[in-house]
Amino acid sequence: MLYHLFEFLKSKYDLAGAGLFQYISFRSGMAVVLSILISVTFGKNLIDMLRKKQVGESIRDLGLEGQMEKKGTPTMGGIIIILAIVLPTLLFARLDNVYVILLLVSTLWMGAIGFLDDYIKVFKKNKEGLRGHFKIVGQVGLGLIVGLTLYFNNNVVVREFEKPTVTQEEIVAEAPVYHDVKSTKTTIPFFKNNEADYSFLNPFNDKYTWVVYVIIATFIITAVSNGANITDGIDGLAAGTTAIIVLTLGILAYVSGRVDFTRYLNIMYIPNTGELLVFSTALVGATVGFLWYNSYPAQVFMGDTGSLSLGGIVAVFALVIRKELLIPILCGIYLIENVSVIMQVAYFKYTKKKYGEGRRIFLMSPLHHHYQKKNIPEPKIVTRFWIVGILLAILTLATLKIR
Amino acid sequence: MLYHLFEFLKSKYDLAGAGLFQYISFRSGMAVVLSILISVTFGKNLIDMLRKKQVGESIRDLGLEGQMEKKGTPTMGGIIIILAIVLPTLLFARLDNVYVILLLVSTLWMGAIGFLDDYIKVFKKNKEGLRGHFKIVGQVGLGLIVGLTLYFNNNVVVREFEKPTVTQEEIVAEAPVYHDVKSTKTTIPFFKNNEADYSFLNPFNDKYTWVVYVIIATFIITAVSNGANITDGIDGLAAGTTAIIVLTLGILAYVSGRVDFTRYLNIMYIPNTGELLVFSTALVGATVGFLWYNSYPAQVFMGDTGSLSLGGIVAVFALVIRKELLIPILCGIYLIENVSVIMQVAYFKYTKKKYGEGRRIFLMSPLHHHYQKKNIPEPKIVTRFWIVGILLAILTLATLKIR
Repeated sequence: MLYHLFEFLKSKYDLAGAGLFQYISFRSGMAVVLSILISVTFGKNLIDMLRKKQVGESIRDLGLEGQMEKKGTPTMGGIIIILAIVLPTLLFARLDNVYVILLLVSTLWMGAIGFLDDYIKVFKKNKEGLRGHFKIVGQVGLGLIVGLTLYFNNNVVVREFEKPTVTQEEIVAEAPVYHDVKSTKTTIPFFKNNEADYSFLNPFNDKYTWVVYVIIATFIITAVSNGANITDGIDGLAAGTTAIIVLTLGILAYVSGRVDFTRYLNIMYIPNTGELLVFSTALVGATVGFLWYNSYPAQVFMGDTGSLSLGGIVAVFALVIRKELLIPILCGIYLIENVSVIMQVAYFKYTKKKYGEGRRIFLMSPLHHHYQKKNIPEPKIVTRFWIVGILLAILTLATLKIR
Repeated sequence: MLYHLFEFLKSKYDLAGAGLFQYISFRSGMAVVLSILISVTFGKNLIDMLRKKQVGESIRDLGLEGQMEKKGTPTMGGIIIILAIVLPTLLFARLDNVYVILLLVSTLWMGAIGFLDDYIKVFKKNKEGLRGHFKIVGQVGLGLIVGLTLYFNNNVVVREFEKPTVTQEEIVAEAPVYHDVKSTKTTIPFFKNNEADYSFLNPFNDKYTWVVYVIIATFIITAVSNGANITDGIDGLAAGTTAIIVLTLGILAYVSGRVDFTRYLNIMYIPNTGELLVFSTALVGATVGFLWYNSYPAQVFMGDTGSLSLGGIVAVFALVIRKELLIPILCGIYLIENVSVIMQVAYFKYTKKKYGEGRRIFLMSPLHHHYQKKNIPEPKIVTRFWIVGILLAILTLATLKIR
C-alpha cells in the first residue's frame, strides 16, 4: 500500500527519501520488523483474551513426561500469525501483483478454514466428522483457486529469451528479444535441462491440461498442509520449521524475478515474483515473533488456524514460483513427520493381520513423539529438527547450481 | 584449498563441473553444510572425551532453579566450534586472501587463549590471577596483530572511483578509473556522508596514526570478546546470538566486496572481502551445529575457548570490513549484557557509599539471570534474546540504506 502511496506522492511532489520504497529489499526489511513487532506486542493480548474465553487445547494423554502440564494452554494462536503476515504485506508489498494477491487470498482462506476447525474442536461436541469435511473443502477449494488463477491469469507468465546466451552487456545495452509464455512448466531439481511441462501428463487434449494442473495443485496443497498440521506437535517446531522454509522460498522467488540472477543461474525467469520476498519476510517475522510465546514452554499453540494456513501458504508459494518439485527436499521435516505416521499405521495394520498383534516401527508417531519417548527433552528435539531444516534449505538452494 | 586445487587442475586439464568452485556462494553453501556436520558428528565424541577427563564446569550457586543440575556438564566445547570453523574455511575459502588469513589467525589465537583460560579454571587451583593476565595478553596481542596488519598490509585497501557516478553500463563496458587507497577510513551509520577517517583523532603527526588505530582495534576486540564472554551464561545464548551477528557480518562483507552492490548502496568498496562470506557461513554452521548439543538442556558448554574466540572474531570481522561502528547495534545483546553488569556493580557501590547499604538495579546480573530470577524459563529467555538479536541484525543492515 505504502509503495503505491509513495509512487502517487512522487508523481505529484518532489519527495526526498521516498525513493526507498521502490526497493524490494527495503520493503522486505520493514515487513519483517513490523511482523515481529505485531506478533510480540499483540501476542500478549491475544493470549489473555483466549485464556479468558477458555480456548484451551484438550490434550490427549500420550504418556509423555510433562505433557499434561500443557492442558489449558490456549490454542488458535495462529490468528496472530495471520495478522502479522497480512498487515505488513498490505503495507509494504505491491498490491498490483498477482502473486502477492494470490498468497494473501490463500492465507486468509486457509486461516478461515483452520479457524473454523479449531472453533469446532474447542466449542462443539460433534468433533471429527465436521472437521474432516472442512479440511477437505478448504484444501480442494484452495487447489481450485490457485490452480485456475495460475493457469488462466494472463499476468502469470514465464519470460523466455530468443537467444539463449544473452550476455550481461546485451541485457544492459538493450532489452534482448523475449516472449512471455503462458505454460505449465516447472523446475526439476538435479537435472541438466531442469524444466518439465505438466502438459505431458495429458497427451490427449491440450484443452483440458488445466484439469491436470488443478489436480496437481490440489494434491500438493493437501499434502503440504497436512504435513505442517502433523509437524505442529511440540513447542516451536512448526513455527520455526516453516520460517526456515519460507525464507528459502522468498530467496528463490527474489532470484526467479530478476533477469540477471536467473541468467547467471540458468533458471526460469518469472517476472514479478521478486515482490514475494516482502510476503515471505512478513511470514518469517510473524512466525519468529510467534516463538516469543510459542517456544518451550509454550504459552500458546498456533492450532489448525496456524498450521493449516502455514502449510497451505508453503504449497502455494512453491507452485507460484514453479519450484513445487523441490518440496520433498525443502519441506523434508513435514514429509518425514507425515511419512512416519503413515508407516506406523500401515505397519501396525499389516503386522496385526499377519501375526495377530500390531507392531510398531517408532515408539510413537509422528516422529517428534518418538524422540520424546526416548527421553530427549522437548526443546532439544525442536532445535535439532530446526538444524535439519536449515540443512535441507541449503540443499534446496544448492539444487539451483548442482546439475 | 579446494579452490586452488581446482584452479590448478583446470589450468592443466579440461574439467567439467569444476567451475562451481569459482563461486563464493557455492563455496559458502558447502562450508555451512560441512561445518554443521563437523559440529554434530564430532561433538558427540568430544563430549564423551571431556566427560571422561572430567572437564566439568564448577557452577557457582546463584540460587537459580535447575541451575545445580548443570554441575558436571563438560566445558571447553568451544574446541568443536573452532574446529568446525577452521576446517571448512581451509577447504573452501581462498587462502591467498589477506582477510581470510587474518580471521583464521584470530580464531586460532583467541581459541588458544580461551583454551588456556579454561584449562586453568578446570585443573589449577590458582584461578583468578593467572586467568586475568591471559585474557589481557590475548586481547592486546590480537589488537596488535589485527591493527598492524590492517594498517600496514598492502593488500588491505579501499577502492575509490574517480568519477563518483559511474553507471552500470560503464562498469560493464570498461573498468572505470579507480585508485586503491590505504586509509583508516571507516563507516558511520545513519549519516549522509557516512565515512570517517580515524586519522582525525591524531591531528599532529600522520606517522603515528597506526598507534591510534592499534589502540582502537585493541579496545574493540577487548570490549566485544568480554561481551561475548558475559553473554555465554545460559544454554544456547552465546552460540545463537553470535550466529546471527556473524551471518549479518558475512552479508556486509559480501556486499562490500562487490563493485555493483557497493555502487548501488553507495558504501565503501573493499575488494576481496566477499571471500569472508565463506568464513562467516563456516562460523554460522559451527555455532548452529553446536546448538545440537548446547541447546537447553545443554550437554556441553563452549567455555572461554568458545566465547572469547567468538567475541574476538566478531570484533576482527567488523574491523576488517570497516563496519566496527555498527557493533553497538549489531552486537546489542553483548552490549546490554555487559552494560547490565557494569550498571549493577556501579550502582551497588554508589548506594553502598551513599546509604550504607548496596542496592541493585537488576535482580541479578548479567541481564539473562535477571529474567531467570523473574521465573521465565531458560529456553524462553534464550529464544527471546535471539529474536531481539534478529531485529538488531536487520536494523544494522538497514543502516546501509537509511541516512
